[in-house]
Amino acid sequence: MQKPAETRFPVHELIAERWSPVCFDERPIEPEKIGSLFEAARWAPSSYNEQPWSFLAAGRDDRREFDRLLGCLMEANQAWAKHAGLLAISVAAKVYARNDKPNRHAWHDVGAATQNLILQAMAMGLHAHPMGGFDAARVQQEYHLPEHYEACTAVAVGYLSTDLDRFSADLKQRQLGGRMRKPLSEMVFRGAWGRPFSLPTDGAAR
Amino acid sequence: MQKPAETRFPVHELIAERWSPVCFDERPIEPEKIGSLFEAARWAPSSYNEQPWSFLAAGRDDRREFDRLLGCLMEANQAWAKHAGLLAISVAAKVYARNDKPNRHAWHDVGAATQNLILQAMAMGLHAHPMGGFDAARVQQEYHLPEHYEACTAVAVGYLSTDLDRFSADLKQRQLGGRMRKPLSEMVFRGAWGRPFSLPTDGAAR
Repeated sequence: MQKPAETRFPVHELIAERWSPVCFDERPIEPEKIGSLFEAARWAPSSYNEQPWSFLAAGRDDRREFDRLLGCLMEANQAWAKHAGLLAISVAAKVYARNDKPNRHAWHDVGAATQNLILQAMAMGLHAHPMGGFDAARVQQEYHLPEHYEACTAVAVGYLSTDLDRFSADLKQRQLGGRMRKPLSEMVFRGAWGRPFSLPTDGAAR
Repeated sequence: MQKPAETRFPVHELIAERWSPVCFDERPIEPEKIGSLFEAARWAPSSYNEQPWSFLAAGRDDRREFDRLLGCLMEANQAWAKHAGLLAISVAAKVYARNDKPNRHAWHDVGAATQNLILQAMAMGLHAHPMGGFDAARVQQEYHLPEHYEACTAVAVGYLSTDLDRFSADLKQRQLGGRMRKPLSEMVFRGAWGRPFSLPTDGAAR
């Protein structure tokens, strides 16, 4: 099942075909693929090469840890994420290790690393769904995050389900729904905020 | 010129081969490619699909705007970014458009969009170098960013220079230097902070 982005300009297939499913089957993810997911995150760029990202992770065959991590998600997310093959929570180091000063770019760089992980999932026949909806305070306490570290985003990774009738009508609808974005004219500016950057009108649409 | 990541587990070539050059040649970037860069950013995932990213951009053939944007970078970055084909500054919307509440994930999601842009550059034979070193207050004022928006990261995009002797010894050394990352055991945890996630020891290294 594919839901390629409707693009005005062509983009690489990993990016065009990435979307956030809610209907996963329950296959565990192969350990080598789990290695590749985090290896991809590892090679993201970061301010002063600080690599402010870490991940708490649990595969579904590690039932105790999987359920513990699942329990930190908002209930609405647990309803579908419980079928994923792997759950992870990204964590940001809020200060630079080099000088203990606040790292203004920590969350940004965690986002870059997480996007690498998500695209690497796509490259291996998996899908990943990042979530803001989880209890960051609970993660902080439950996993003993040290001072100056905070939980950013939860991510569910897994294989797509091919049997949508197993899922609630709501999840099925979300799985099949379209993907929407603001137009480029509202996000790329030249010279001043809100003044659209002039892009060619004849971009070869996918 | 390639500097592929030394990985313990294989990762997609776009991710493995991405690095941040400082020696660009001065070719402008084709307008269609500029469209594809931002189209890639556009399709990143975000909390509540808020798409909290925008970009101020200037191509090098738009001399006035290019120099204006270049002038917002720290001098050490101007020294090499002046050769890039395109400069951009990412901007985060700090509150949700839907309810005016603070968006905890804004910077994270801008980081994800920017990573898409960087990987799309790789896919088109370009390279991109993100920078924290610029004057965010100056950007805020100069480009009239509204309240609740803030400048995150500068990005230089361009074609690699094939004539490194044109550059200072320092830049040449940075261009040729290796790429370093912390080991996976220091960034992927299971059960508690700092307890390494068990990954296979026989990952097929690249």
